[in-house]
Amino acid sequence: MALLSELATEIVIPVCAVIGIAFSFVQFVLVSRVKVTPERHAPPQSVNNNKNGYGEYLIEEEDGINDQNVVAKCAEIQNAISEGATSFLFTEYQYVGVFMVAFAILIFLFLGSVKGFSLKNQPCTYDAEKLCKPALATAVFSTVSFVLGALTSVLSGYLGMKIATYANARTTLEARKGVGKAFITAFRSGAVMGFLLAANGLLVLYITINLFKLYYGDDWEGLFEAITGYGLGGSSMALFGRVGGGIYTKAADVGADLVGKVERNIPEDDPRNPAVIADNVGDNVGDIAGMGSDLFGSYAESSCAALVVASISSFGISHDFTAMCYPLLISSMGILVCLITTLFATDFFEIKAVKEIEPALKKQLIISTVLMTVGIAIVSWVALPSSFTIYNFGVQKVVKNWELFLCVGVGLWAGLVIGFVTEYYTSNAYSPVQDVADSCRTGAATNVIFGLALGYKSVIIPIFAIAVSIFVSFSFAAMYGIAVAALGMLSTIATGLAIDAYGPISDNAGGIAEMAGMSHRIRERTDALDAAGNTTAAIGKGFAIGSAALVSLALFGAFVSRAAISTVDVLTPKVFIGLIVGAMLPYWFSAMTMKSVGSAALKMVEEVRRQFNTIPGLMEGLAKPDYATCVKISTDASIKEMIPPGALVMLTPLIVGIFFGVETLSGVLAGSLVSGVQIAISASNTGGAWDNAKKYIEAGASEHARSLGPKGSDAHKAAVIGDTIGDPLKDTSGPSLNILIKLMAVESLVFAPFFATHGGLLFKIF
Amino acid sequence: MALLSELATEIVIPVCAVIGIAFSFVQFVLVSRVKVTPERHAPPQSVNNNKNGYGEYLIEEEDGINDQNVVAKCAEIQNAISEGATSFLFTEYQYVGVFMVAFAILIFLFLGSVKGFSLKNQPCTYDAEKLCKPALATAVFSTVSFVLGALTSVLSGYLGMKIATYANARTTLEARKGVGKAFITAFRSGAVMGFLLAANGLLVLYITINLFKLYYGDDWEGLFEAITGYGLGGSSMALFGRVGGGIYTKAADVGADLVGKVERNIPEDDPRNPAVIADNVGDNVGDIAGMGSDLFGSYAESSCAALVVASISSFGISHDFTAMCYPLLISSMGILVCLITTLFATDFFEIKAVKEIEPALKKQLIISTVLMTVGIAIVSWVALPSSFTIYNFGVQKVVKNWELFLCVGVGLWAGLVIGFVTEYYTSNAYSPVQDVADSCRTGAATNVIFGLALGYKSVIIPIFAIAVSIFVSFSFAAMYGIAVAALGMLSTIATGLAIDAYGPISDNAGGIAEMAGMSHRIRERTDALDAAGNTTAAIGKGFAIGSAALVSLALFGAFVSRAAISTVDVLTPKVFIGLIVGAMLPYWFSAMTMKSVGSAALKMVEEVRRQFNTIPGLMEGLAKPDYATCVKISTDASIKEMIPPGALVMLTPLIVGIFFGVETLSGVLAGSLVSGVQIAISASNTGGAWDNAKKYIEAGASEHARSLGPKGSDAHKAAVIGDTIGDPLKDTSGPSLNILIKLMAVESLVFAPFFATHGGLLFKIF
Repeated sequence: MALLSELATEIVIPVCAVIGIAFSFVQFVLVSRVKVTPERHAPPQSVNNNKNGYGEYLIEEEDGINDQNVVAKCAEIQNAISEGATSFLFTEYQYVGVFMVAFAILIFLFLGSVKGFSLKNQPCTYDAEKLCKPALATAVFSTVSFVLGALTSVLSGYLGMKIATYANARTTLEARKGVGKAFITAFRSGAVMGFLLAANGLLVLYITINLFKLYYGDDWEGLFEAITGYGLGGSSMALFGRVGGGIYTKAADVGADLVGKVERNIPEDDPRNPAVIADNVGDNVGDIAGMGSDLFGSYAESSCAALVVASISSFGISHDFTAMCYPLLISSMGILVCLITTLFATDFFEIKAVKEIEPALKKQLIISTVLMTVGIAIVSWVALPSSFTIYNFGVQKVVKNWELFLCVGVGLWAGLVIGFVTEYYTSNAYSPVQDVADSCRTGAATNVIFGLALGYKSVIIPIFAIAVSIFVSFSFAAMYGIAVAALGMLSTIATGLAIDAYGPISDNAGGIAEMAGMSHRIRERTDALDAAGNTTAAIGKGFAIGSAALVSLALFGAFVSRAAISTVDVLTPKVFIGLIVGAMLPYWFSAMTMKSVGSAALKMVEEVRRQFNTIPGLMEGLAKPDYATCVKISTDASIKEMIPPGALVMLTPLIVGIFFGVETLSGVLAGSLVSGVQIAISASNTGGAWDNAKKYIEAGASEHARSLGPKGSDAHKAAVIGDTIGDPLKDTSGPSLNILIKLMAVESLVFAPFFATHGGLLFKIF
Repeated sequence: MALLSELATEIVIPVCAVIGIAFSFVQFVLVSRVKVTPERHAPPQSVNNNKNGYGEYLIEEEDGINDQNVVAKCAEIQNAISEGATSFLFTEYQYVGVFMVAFAILIFLFLGSVKGFSLKNQPCTYDAEKLCKPALATAVFSTVSFVLGALTSVLSGYLGMKIATYANARTTLEARKGVGKAFITAFRSGAVMGFLLAANGLLVLYITINLFKLYYGDDWEGLFEAITGYGLGGSSMALFGRVGGGIYTKAADVGADLVGKVERNIPEDDPRNPAVIADNVGDNVGDIAGMGSDLFGSYAESSCAALVVASISSFGISHDFTAMCYPLLISSMGILVCLITTLFATDFFEIKAVKEIEPALKKQLIISTVLMTVGIAIVSWVALPSSFTIYNFGVQKVVKNWELFLCVGVGLWAGLVIGFVTEYYTSNAYSPVQDVADSCRTGAATNVIFGLALGYKSVIIPIFAIAVSIFVSFSFAAMYGIAVAALGMLSTIATGLAIDAYGPISDNAGGIAEMAGMSHRIRERTDALDAAGNTTAAIGKGFAIGSAALVSLALFGAFVSRAAISTVDVLTPKVFIGLIVGAMLPYWFSAMTMKSVGSAALKMVEEVRRQFNTIPGLMEGLAKPDYATCVKISTDASIKEMIPPGALVMLTPLIVGIFFGVETLSGVLAGSLVSGVQIAISASNTGGAWDNAKKYIEAGASEHARSLGPKGSDAHKAAVIGDTIGDPLKDTSGPSLNILIKLMAVESLVFAPFFATHGGLLFKIF
């Protein structure tokens, strides 16, 4: 038996969750000390130095620190963004809510029908000699956990957005004091979101398990089967959040850039641009709320995948609660580790210059990984028996606790590898992005060719890292090994989310600085923060995709077990057609989302052009643009356009399962997984690289960069085109794809009992 | 037994091949009637009308028909192109020759080592009670057939190139008489190539089989195992041809366009552009020679796949030669059917206006498919016993002759579906390309976003068509069914090649018209031919990819049988890591080829710029540019850059097979197949659509198109950027990918005996 007693487990998990929430609150208090209300008695003062050179001076001098008008203006803009984002999320949740209710009913009906809505106890699936709770109970509890997962996801996205819109103007104002202060404000705000989401996800899952246990008692097989609904709920919400938010933000961004930067030659985020508010709102609903929901979904699913496999392994059979909760204990340890890691960025060291930003963020990754390795070792030692058995497609496989430690560890370190590779390919400190920037000399076409090639190339090492993790963890502990490897990659989710959220917050901070008419130097500081943010955003996406691949495989394995398929043989036509069609789905999905962004951007462009042409004095800054119409265009487009891709993902497993059966569905899952991962990684890295190639030219921080610039040069124009193309790739299609593969897998798992009983109609008829 | 006697089979196949060659010769004679030597006694005459409107007038009037200077100039340019192409192909073949010799030695050594170079007869693989020829014989004959396949492929590419460079100036000259005459010349030349390649491939294969039979006698298992080397040789050559030619042509094309069209504002193919000859040479070595080798490779491989499966089925066991030759008889019938089909384009009907070109080409597809359906029915009826058994992973499956007819038929019709879908997505007569053109209003970025989305979307129906073919043919006749379905798709290869080669010939014709300083109206006619050619090129690629998918699957199946694996279970870690890494390979490969084109184009741009800046009088047309340096840049770049991607494809199966074993290799094959097909289709359709969106704006054939144009407008500039990005996608990366998937499969099959005996070292050690 494990060293940690059941009682201790019951205490440790919620305590860690509460510590996470408390830490998040502390960070929030620290951020809130930055006031966005003008101070009355400040002495008027004007600091204005004309130094040249890059980076070094940024931290040293304060700039416009006592201009109280700026503070008022920032507050005003912040309000506008926050209101826009809140109103969009409410609209989005309303529409998605209808869909979710319908889907909840579907879950209940489909799963209830497995045994004809019978109220009688039935023989267990994996142990026919015992009696388990009726299928109807699974239907009810799956539906409940689905709704809970969806609500937690909504909450995660919403809170993230609220925090980000609370932090953006504060980051701008701190940027007046220097880049270090601004960095800490942005990073702390990211941490608020990261810890809140991680702790909240853990807590809700923990409470749900304990409540369900009241009914299920010793039927852990049924209990954890019902819990998988939590993952499905989380990911379904995340899908719409990512797609809807992604379309919203990129329609606004592309539309604003095409007219503002390209046609009218005004800077990014210029307040004269009618789409500027929509653009900034978009960052918060897409990159923040969408990403929050997404990573929460990954976390929920990998926990569910591990739990459902464990429930039919020795932990579940012998009712060893502590070992059963191993995934939750890993996450609890993750919160503590990330807490210490955060202090390295905010308290132990101080950022003094622009060039320290990226290393500081990179250090976060390294520190959290190293500490977590120790953490995993501890958890594996105290929570697991020294030897136990794991369910592996019909047979029980003996696993040692150190082997499971290696499974989690390999996932964790694969995450770090993916993070570093992503950084290498998307940061403008290294040659890949610099080569892309250099190719802008010969125009937009070579820029695009080089950028696409970069994205394709950036896939190689992450895929090998994923392949090694899969091989190691599968060899040691079958599908359970894969599930915990995914958890290992996500165990530092609080830090991951913090550095991920830091990006859009900095982006918004820059926007607010521009709109509030703050000095050029402040904008340079926020730009430097933002460039690092592009890289961290790409890293965050790398983590999300890598973990999604592992999670999906684990869920896929659980599905195959539940659907009682013995092998998924590629060389049967049923499976192979699934495989090739599955590999096509990410393309279909991307076609829809890219086209949606394109069409919405075209509408936005027309509206922005119309305003510039019809509102007198707009270009001169004498009249205010009509921001609301642009917000409405983005809102309408994203609500309308998120339905088809969402439906494609949600309905495919149902249609395939019902008409073609579980073998074909297995093929579809495997195909979409192996194909989707590639497109997702390449799309998000290509986009990140283009964005930073543009920033590289704009910042002009090296001899080479200056030879390509300045802003407005031909090379810079070519870079802007690349950046615009990258927008839907990196913020709409790419990151949505990992939800596609996860969601189809978890949905298949939830509906597995139904498909196994009633599926494959078409083949049954012929 | 079959209705057709063995003797009749032995006569019918070579006769059909000879008919094909004879028909090709007749077409050649007809083309050669167009003289490119100036006539002495022609009366001087000048026809010059100023009509407006598009299309209708093109056919009616002759233009500059008696200007003998033009003829001389055309002949001169044609010579330059032909010499450049010949010299490049020789250089390429030299380098590849070294590689091929090394690989041939590898084949001999690896296969010979299977039984330790023993000269003794051994028990057969599939029937241990009989004695078969020694493994050393298989090693020798595989090596011989590998070399033969490579040589046939070289011959195919070389002849194609010779014909195309013979035809291009003739097409230009005929364009003076009208669009109909030019069309017929270009199409006839395409037919010369199509029939020559199809007939030649069939004849060499047929002769090889008969020669090998002299040694092998009744050991058909060994005989047809050795024959698979033919497919490997064909495809290995094709790989280098496609990649090398693709890099050559696109480096020149992109380089020429970037400086000429974008910077200097001179028209495409303007003789002042130093890269113009390299560009036109490129069309012939890339699109013609490369594509010829490629389709020959597909044809050789699908024949080999069908033969090798048949040899261990009842045909092979009972030594039924006619039924055994079913694949060859299908190809023989294909030659006859294509012959009749060609007459519909060249003799039965006449093109009278531009708008009739595309329908005429489309009719070719429909007519050949309909006729071939009847042809397949006849062959299936006379060549097959009414019932027979097919080897299906260890068991013999009973198949009826009408079932096999359906297998071939479903492949044939799937090809038509793919052709039509490709046409829909790449022809500027339909809304997808028009939408892409329309998106140029808002600049290059939206053009690229819409173009990428179009490519992704165009994958959907072809994949369903392939999936249906696989399901139907597999259900009826297992892997043999898939192989003959691929043959069905390729049975009309002569027509397919004809309409495919027609494109680059027209493209070259336009180039020659421009360079010879012929009138604007002639250029418009060749442009109209070329626009249709872009669509047919995309259709040709669609066929190549679709058939490659089927061929690879059939080869994959044969490999699995030969390697004695019983299942390829996705849910074993060995297979899954293969699957995900395999799915990554097309990205790695594309990254290499795209980057190569990009880098080579950058060099080309610098050289072209240098010449414009340093050669006085070049822009004014007073001085001649230095074409040779540009040709050298393209040559050097393509020779150097084709090695790494070529090595990736050739070495991956060897490395995976030797170190990880046959299960992982199976995963790699399946993964690269399902992922590569998608990228290949989307890349070639995206590129085709961009090219035609540009042509749509340039031609200005509708109210909508004129609102975007004319040449030089902002929308047109955006379209040119899209076109340039599409170049490497559609002519380098995309079409090479289908060779990647085929080649890895056929290579695995050839080396299967070695892998099965000595493979999987890494897993054996641990």
